Amino acid sequence: MGAVRGNVVVTNVARADREAVDGLAKAGVSTVHEAQGRTHLLDPAVRPVYSGARIAGTAVTVSLPPGDNWMVHVAVEQCTDGDVLVIAPTTPSQAAYIGDLLATTLATRGVRGVVVDAGVRDVADLTAMRFPVWSRHVSAFGCIKETLGSVNVGVVCAGQWIEPGDAIVADDDGVVVVPRDRAAEVLEAAHAREERETRIRERYRNGELGLDMNDMREPLAAKGLIYVEQEPPR
Amino acid sequence: MGAVRGNVVVTNVARADREAVDGLAKAGVSTVHEAQGRTHLLDPAVRPVYSGARIAGTAVTVSLPPGDNWMVHVAVEQCTDGDVLVIAPTTPSQAAYIGDLLATTLATRGVRGVVVDAGVRDVADLTAMRFPVWSRHVSAFGCIKETLGSVNVGVVCAGQWIEPGDAIVADDDGVVVVPRDRAAEVLEAAHAREERETRIRERYRNGELGLDMNDMREPLAAKGLIYVEQEPPR
Amino acid sequence: MGAVRGNVVVTNVARADREAVDGLAKAGVSTVHEAQGRTHLLDPAVRPVYSGARIAGTAVTVSLPPGDNWMVHVAVEQCTDGDVLVIAPTTPSQAAYIGDLLATTLATRGVRGVVVDAGVRDVADLTAMRFPVWSRHVSAFGCIKETLGSVNVGVVCAGQWIEPGDAIVADDDGVVVVPRDRAAEVLEAAHAREERETRIRERYRNGELGLDMNDMREPLAAKGLIYVEQEPPR
Amino acid sequence: MGAVRGNVVVTNVARADREAVDGLAKAGVSTVHEAQGRTHLLDPAVRPVYSGARIAGTAVTVSLPPGDNWMVHVAVEQCTDGDVLVIAPTTPSQAAYIGDLLATTLATRGVRGVVVDAGVRDVADLTAMRFPVWSRHVSAFGCIKETLGSVNVGVVCAGQWIEPGDAIVADDDGVVVVPRDRAAEVLEAAHAREERETRIRERYRNGELGLDMNDMREPLAAKGLIYVEQEPPR
Amino acid sequence: MGAVRGNVVVTNVARADREAVDGLAKAGVSTVHEAQGRTHLLDPAVRPVYSGARIAGTAVTVSLPPGDNWMVHVAVEQCTDGDVLVIAPTTPSQAAYIGDLLATTLATRGVRGVVVDAGVRDVADLTAMRFPVWSRHVSAFGCIKETLGSVNVGVVCAGQWIEPGDAIVADDDGVVVVPRDRAAEVLEAAHAREERETRIRERYRNGELGLDMNDMREPLAAKGLIYVEQEPPR
Amino acid sequence: MGAVRGNVVVTNVARADREAVDGLAKAGVSTVHEAQGRTHLLDPAVRPVYSGARIAGTAVTVSLPPGDNWMVHVAVEQCTDGDVLVIAPTTPSQAAYIGDLLATTLATRGVRGVVVDAGVRDVADLTAMRFPVWSRHVSAFGCIKETLGSVNVGVVCAGQWIEPGDAIVADDDGVVVVPRDRAAEVLEAAHAREERETRIRERYRNGELGLDMNDMREPLAAKGLIYVEQEPPR
Repeated sequence: MGAVRGNVVVTNVARADREAVDGLAKAGVSTVHEAQGRTHLLDPAVRPVYSGARIAGTAVTVSLPPGDNWMVHVAVEQCTDGDVLVIAPTTPSQAAYIGDLLATTLATRGVRGVVVDAGVRDVADLTAMRFPVWSRHVSAFGCIKETLGSVNVGVVCAGQWIEPGDAIVADDDGVVVVPRDRAAEVLEAAHAREERETRIRERYRNGELGLDMNDMREPLAAKGLIYVEQEPPR
Repeated sequence: MGAVRGNVVVTNVARADREAVDGLAKAGVSTVHEAQGRTHLLDPAVRPVYSGARIAGTAVTVSLPPGDNWMVHVAVEQCTDGDVLVIAPTTPSQAAYIGDLLATTLATRGVRGVVVDAGVRDVADLTAMRFPVWSRHVSAFGCIKETLGSVNVGVVCAGQWIEPGDAIVADDDGVVVVPRDRAAEVLEAAHAREERETRIRERYRNGELGLDMNDMREPLAAKGLIYVEQEPPR
Repeated sequence: MGAVRGNVVVTNVARADREAVDGLAKAGVSTVHEAQGRTHLLDPAVRPVYSGARIAGTAVTVSLPPGDNWMVHVAVEQCTDGDVLVIAPTTPSQAAYIGDLLATTLATRGVRGVVVDAGVRDVADLTAMRFPVWSRHVSAFGCIKETLGSVNVGVVCAGQWIEPGDAIVADDDGVVVVPRDRAAEVLEAAHAREERETRIRERYRNGELGLDMNDMREPLAAKGLIYVEQEPPR
Repeated sequence: MGAVRGNVVVTNVARADREAVDGLAKAGVSTVHEAQGRTHLLDPAVRPVYSGARIAGTAVTVSLPPGDNWMVHVAVEQCTDGDVLVIAPTTPSQAAYIGDLLATTLATRGVRGVVVDAGVRDVADLTAMRFPVWSRHVSAFGCIKETLGSVNVGVVCAGQWIEPGDAIVADDDGVVVVPRDRAAEVLEAAHAREERETRIRERYRNGELGLDMNDMREPLAAKGLIYVEQEPPR
Repeated sequence: MGAVRGNVVVTNVARADREAVDGLAKAGVSTVHEAQGRTHLLDPAVRPVYSGARIAGTAVTVSLPPGDNWMVHVAVEQCTDGDVLVIAPTTPSQAAYIGDLLATTLATRGVRGVVVDAGVRDVADLTAMRFPVWSRHVSAFGCIKETLGSVNVGVVCAGQWIEPGDAIVADDDGVVVVPRDRAAEVLEAAHAREERETRIRERYRNGELGLDMNDMREPLAAKGLIYVEQEPPR
Repeated sequence: MGAVRGNVVVTNVARADREAVDGLAKAGVSTVHEAQGRTHLLDPAVRPVYSGARIAGTAVTVSLPPGDNWMVHVAVEQCTDGDVLVIAPTTPSQAAYIGDLLATTLATRGVRGVVVDAGVRDVADLTAMRFPVWSRHVSAFGCIKETLGSVNVGVVCAGQWIEPGDAIVADDDGVVVVPRDRAAEVLEAAHAREERETRIRERYRNGELGLDMNDMREPLAAKGLIYVEQEPPR
C-alpha cells in the first residue's frame, strides 16, 4: 500500500502483538531504536508534555488537514485498549489537535497516549490526568472541523512512515516506531542489548574504562592517535 | 491611538475590571482564547519559566530597545496590585530583561507575573519565589541601561497588539490578551464554554462518542467518508 | 595555541583552582557572566536535561566529528574528580554523544556534569541519577565509533572558545566559561556583585524603587522622558 | 482604535500623502527606518520573492485566519492605485495567501506589491511579471475559503502594528511601516540622512577614516581602548 | 511494501509514464499540488539551488545514514534518462550529499535533477552546469563513505513518502510527488485547472473582481461581513 | 593566546602568505575544507548577500557587543589591501553591523569582503558595488556606538575560532578559515584534490561509474548489500 487516496476509515486493523508491545515499553525508546538498527526514530522536535512517561501501544493513525481535527473524532471510535493515537497533518501546523476533552474520551477507551506532529493544549490538565502526549508544539490555538481526512492509513509523522497497527514506543527520549510484524524480533534484540548494558554499567561502576572493556587502545593508535603531555606554563 | 511616538510614560491608566480579570484566570488561556473567537493569542514560542502557574492581571506595557531594560525600572513605579508587566522590545532580542531582583520589586508591589518577548534570567530563583514569567528565551545575558523607551503605550508583544490595562491571561498553554473593555463579556462566554465542556467531559467518561454527541456521522458521510475493512494479510 | 591539528590527547592538563571553582558554582551562571564583563556565555540553546542543578568544574574538552563519539571514551580516562566534560562536534550534530552508560563511568570518576553542543539520550535515567547534562538536543539517535578527534585541545562549544582546565559553570540559566587563570579574580568580582545584590534585594522588599536607589530620574528626564496622564475615556 | 472586533470591511480609508510615499520609496527601507528613530521595522524573516524591487505604497490591511484567504478577495476591491496589500494571519501560517492570479488582479488595479506574514506561491510567475511580494515563506500549499476576517483594520504583521493608509516601504533590506500622518516628516528626516550619507560616502572614497570624521579617537581612549603591537612570532 | 529492511538495491523499477511526467513539468508544482487534492507536497524548507528551473522526472530513491553518501554512488547506476534522484537520510543531516562531481555523472546519464533532504555543495558549479538541485541546506561539509543504505525502496523525504518510480515535480515553488500510477490522472486534473486559471487570468486583466466572478458577495454577507465607512479624522 | 581580555587593538598583525591566499580563492570553499581535513567550516547559516562571489583574504577580526558596531570603525584603520573583515558579536545579534557606507571605506582600502556573524543592510547597494558580504541575517536594523570591544584578537565567528591574519575563503558554498601558518600546506593539498577531481570529472563525462572507478562493488557486497529485481505489479 502506498500513499493515501480519497477519504477512508480502515477498520479491524491488525495490531502488533500485545505482549511484545508491552515489552518494548519497558525497554524504552533509545534501546528499541538501537535494537532495530538505528531506524524509525521520529524527529526529536516532538517532545512529551510532561516528564517521566514511558509507554508503548499500537498505532491508530489519522491523516488530516492543517488546523482541522474533525477526523480525530472519527479516529476515537477506531481506538481500543492498548492503542496509541498518531495524528499527522498533511502539512505543518501549530494548531492544537488535542486537549483534555479528547484525552478524556481516549483514556476512557484505554488509549495509552497520543503522538501529534502539531500542537496540543490543556497541558496542565493532561499532566494532572497523567495522559501523556508527545507533540511538536504547545498552543492554545484550536482546530476547526470542516474537512475530511483518513483513519488507519499509512502516514508520515514527524519524518517517519507509520502504518496502522505498528508499535509506537514513547518516553522522555522521544518516539520510535516498530513495524507491526517486527515487534517480537525487535524486542528480543532489545533484551539482548539491555543485558549487555547491565553488565557494562556494573563494570563502569567498578571503575573499568570503556577503552579497556572494548579493546579500543590498539585501533585508536593504529588510526594515529597520539598522547602528549601539556607543556608546563602557558 | 496608533503607534508609539517619542518617549512617554502614561500614568493613571484605566484597567480591566478586577473581578472579571480574576475570573479569566480561573478559565485559563485555552478557554479564554476560544471564548473571544480564537484571537489575541501570543506566539506559542513564549513559554512559562516553570510549570503550573495560572494567572491573569492588567497590563502595564513597556516598549524598549533590544538589549536595554532601563525602562523596566520606570515601569515598575507604574505597576500596582493585580498588574502583569508586559515587556516588548522594538526588535528581536535574546537578552534577559528581568531576573530575581526586578521580580522582587514587582512582587512587593503585588504584580502577578511578567510576559517578556525576549529573555529572562535567574529562573531557579523565580521558580523558588513562585513569581511566574513567560518568555521567549532563557539567557544569562543581561541588559544595558542607555536608551529610553515608553511605558503604558500600545505595544506589539509576541505578535499581538496589547494596550495598557488590557487583561493578560497566562498559564501552561501560553498567553492571551483580552482587550480591556471586553473582559466581562469574554468571561461570560468563557463560563458558557466551561459549562458545556463539563457536560461533554462527563459524557465522554461515560463512554459516549463525539461522533454521536455532535451528530457527525451524517455530515461525514455526505462529504464522502467511507469505511472499509482491512484486507486480511499484508 | 590556536586551532586543533592532527589527533592528539593532551594529558596532565593544568586546571583552574578548585576552591575558586567551587565558589563559582555557588555564585551561579548569571552572576559569574556579569562579573567577568558579560562575556564567555554559551549559546542559550544549550539547556539542562533537568531543572535545579547548579555545578562548576574544570573542563576536559573533546573535539570530534558529527555523529561519532569514539573520542568520548578516550576523554573519560583523562577525567578526574571535579571535572566537567565538554563535548564539541566539529560541525552541527543532533546525535546523542552521551547517555546513562557514559554518565555512569563519568560519575564514578567524580565528574560533575557534561556540556555537549549536540544531543543527549537516556534523560530519564540521567535525571534519576542526578547526573546533570546541558545539551542542545535530546535525541535517541546514538553515535558511531569510526573517526578520531582530539582531547584537551581548545574547542569552540556552543559559540565560545574553551580551553582544557577552564572553569565551567552551569545551572538553569545556561553555561558560562571562566578562563583558567581568571577563576579567582572572577570569583572575587562575583562576590562583590552578590553582596551588592543582597542589599538591593532587601531594599526592594522594603518597597524602595530602582528609580530612586539608582538616581535614575534626573538622567531619564535629561534624555527627554515625559510623563502624561491617560486621557479619560477611549 | 484598538484591536479587531467582529468582521468588518472599512471603506474610504484615508491614505498617506502620495508624494511623500513616493519619496520614501526612493529613500529605501534602511534609511527610512533610521529616519523615524529605528522603529516600525518588520521581522527580517519577511523577504522579497526576487531581488532588486524597491517600492512604497499605502496599506490596505487584511486580518484573516491561518490557511484561509477568502478575505483577500474582499480586500482586492478596496485596493486602488498606489496601494500595497498587507496580509496578516491571526496565527502563524505557512500557507500561500497569494499567487499569480491574485497578483494579476492586484496589478490591474495599480497595486504596487504585497507584504504577507505567511507564504506565497507562483514565484517564477511573480518574478516574470515583476510584481513584488515580501513573504515569510515560499510554499505551494494554497488556502481554503471558509472563514471571515476583516479588511482595513489595524493588524500586527511580522511583529509591527500597521493601520490602513500607513505608508509601507519595502526593498531588499526588508519592510518598514511609516504611520500615515508621519510620512512627510519622516521623508524630510530621510532626505537629511541621505545628504549626510552622500557627503560621508565621498569622504570615504577619498580615504578619510570614520575615526577621524567622527572624532572618535578621544572618546575611545577615554573609555579605555588601548593599542598594542602584536608580539613577533607565535 | 512498508518500511526499509536490510540493505537492498531494487532494480528494474517501474516508472511513471514518461509523457505524463513531461506534462506535469509544464504544469508546475503549485498546479500539480492542487490538482491532486493538496497533498504530497514536500516541506517548503527544501529550496532550489538557483531560480528558474522547472523539472519533472521519475524517482530513484536512496535511503542512507546521516553524513554518509556511499549509497549515492550505488544509486547512480540505477538512474536512467528522465529520472530524478531522491536522497533521504534516515535522520536529519546538514552534510552535502551531492556536489558537482556527482552531478556530472548524473547529468551524463540523463538525470534531470536531485532532491536531497540535507545539504548540497558546489552550488556555483551546479548553477553554471544548469543541473538543478533542491535541498534543505547549502554546506561545504561533505560525507563519509562507511555505511550501507538502500536504493529504490520507499523513503520519507522532507515529510512525504516517496516510492521508486513516482513522479517528482520541482520548481521555484518547491517539490511535489505524484504516485506512479496517478501521473496521468493528475495531469488531466492539472490541465483542467490550467484552463480555468487562464480564463480567470484574462478576466482579472479585464478588471473583473474575484468577488463577482465567484459570486462571493452573498455568502460573505450571510456569514456576517459588514462594510463601514472610516470615521473622518482620527 | 586564549580568549579576549580588556579592550585592545592589536596592530601590525602577521598575515597568511598572499600568494597562498590567492590560490585558496581559486580552489574555493568546498575544496579547501576537504583539503584541511574537513575542519574550520563556518556555520552554513552564514550566506552571501549575492551569488557568484569567490574571495580569499587575510582576517582582521573584531569582537564587539550585540547591536553595537563602534569597533568596526576602529577595525577599518587596521585593514589593508587583501584583508577580509571578520565581525563577531559576543552574543547573538540580528542587527546590521555593516552597510554601503562602511563597505565604501573598506573597498577603498582594498578589503576583499566581510564576514559577519549577525546582520547586514543596504544589500542592493552592496550587490551593485560588487562588494561581497557573508552574513547570518539581512536586516535594516542598524547598530549603536556606545561600547568598546577588541580588534585583532582571537574570536569565535559562526562556530569557528579565527585568529587575526588567518586566511578566510568565502564563496557560494559558505566560509572556511585556514590557520595563518597552514595556508601554503592547505593550498598544496587543495591542488592535489583539484587535479584528482578533474580526472574524475572527465571519466564521469565518459560514462564511467564511481562504483567502478573506486572499486566499491566488493566492499559493498562484503558489508551485505544485495540486489533484487522489483516484483512485477504492485
